[in-house]
Amino acid sequence: MDTHLHHEKHFQASDLVRDVVIGMADGLTVPFALAAGISGVAVSVNTVITAGFAEIAAGAIAMGLGGYLAARSQSDHYVAEMAREESEIVEKPDAEAAEVAEIFEHYGLTAEHYAPVIRGLRERPIAWRDFMMRFELGLERPDPGRAQRSAITIGASYVVGGTIPLAPYVFLHSVSLALPWSAAVTLAALGIFGYVKARLTGAAPLHSAVQTMGIGGIAAAAAFALARAIS
Amino acid sequence: MDTHLHHEKHFQASDLVRDVVIGMADGLTVPFALAAGISGVAVSVNTVITAGFAEIAAGAIAMGLGGYLAARSQSDHYVAEMAREESEIVEKPDAEAAEVAEIFEHYGLTAEHYAPVIRGLRERPIAWRDFMMRFELGLERPDPGRAQRSAITIGASYVVGGTIPLAPYVFLHSVSLALPWSAAVTLAALGIFGYVKARLTGAAPLHSAVQTMGIGGIAAAAAFALARAIS
Repeated sequence: MDTHLHHEKHFQASDLVRDVVIGMADGLTVPFALAAGISGVAVSVNTVITAGFAEIAAGAIAMGLGGYLAARSQSDHYVAEMAREESEIVEKPDAEAAEVAEIFEHYGLTAEHYAPVIRGLRERPIAWRDFMMRFELGLERPDPGRAQRSAITIGASYVVGGTIPLAPYVFLHSVSLALPWSAAVTLAALGIFGYVKARLTGAAPLHSAVQTMGIGGIAAAAAFALARAIS
Repeated sequence: MDTHLHHEKHFQASDLVRDVVIGMADGLTVPFALAAGISGVAVSVNTVITAGFAEIAAGAIAMGLGGYLAARSQSDHYVAEMAREESEIVEKPDAEAAEVAEIFEHYGLTAEHYAPVIRGLRERPIAWRDFMMRFELGLERPDPGRAQRSAITIGASYVVGGTIPLAPYVFLHSVSLALPWSAAVTLAALGIFGYVKARLTGAAPLHSAVQTMGIGGIAAAAAFALARAIS
């Protein structure tokens, strides 16, 4: 039982990390690339700042509410599938039993191995339903507060990430002075972000730092080139 | 076996739908909200177009490459966990057998039910490894081409979505004329997108259409208000 509780905790923490990563990866990259892109076409520093913060507001809301709806629809899907499994277990227990058999046969097991499991599940309908949710459908029971937490975490991470590349424009109040500083602090932040993300998720930290810096740099270069080409 | 193949196909189709939804939801919302936001502060139509397409380039690359790396790291994670399960089955089969027991005990089953399954798995080490991947860790074997497909689908969907709100600015070449058209075509596109998304994923279509239109509207209103407040 203790190990199970530990498992659940681990799972929630990784959901939080996942949401911060989702929000911050785009928050650091897109406003930076947008600001760099329009910096190349001789607009005023006020336009860069206005467009940058408008993008942060739009991006944070779109991603935060998008995350909220994604978590909500995952949860609705779970509830709907659970009701379906419940009624199938009550109404067509033999068909459900055949589905359990199919699961085990996929691993080369035969009736002599799984028949007792089916017998045990038939005597425990609630456990049978939960067993089918996990092992037939591969669905985890969603955490009820997840949708709201996810929305706030993703949105806030986007705002925090997006403020970093815009800060030099606000403080130096000159496009030509701010652009190299924005690039420098953002690439540094992307590197740190990639490094920490990899440490938390168990990937190779330096490799990850270079990757996130690369995405930011490529996105900014593309935005810069496109803005130049258009105007 | 046929049902299993059918299952796999279903799964791939829903991955594609998921990627289109990820890219298009943000592609329709963020460039629209950005363009609407800076339209409110008396910039030239060229600035709106430049900022809008710079955002599309940055957003499509950030989300596309982000999707690529997410799919790649999921695949790396699977391979690493599979190697760990393999060595545990060879080196500590009794500990692994205890883990199988724990899985079934979670559903109220006892040794009389699951002992034959453990016996069968011990005779089939490869199947045992795959069984642990799915039933202990809840991991699905990732599709090898998924990362690249995912990147292209998400990025292209972002570009398609983002081009819709910007088209009126390009064709009408006037901020004041284009803004209401941009809002109208984008809200219509968000409504259609929300409706079709719900039909493909089995949710309530009208509810979903209103939700996606709401997110777009809220994001645009926030970007508009923030842009006004700054300048």
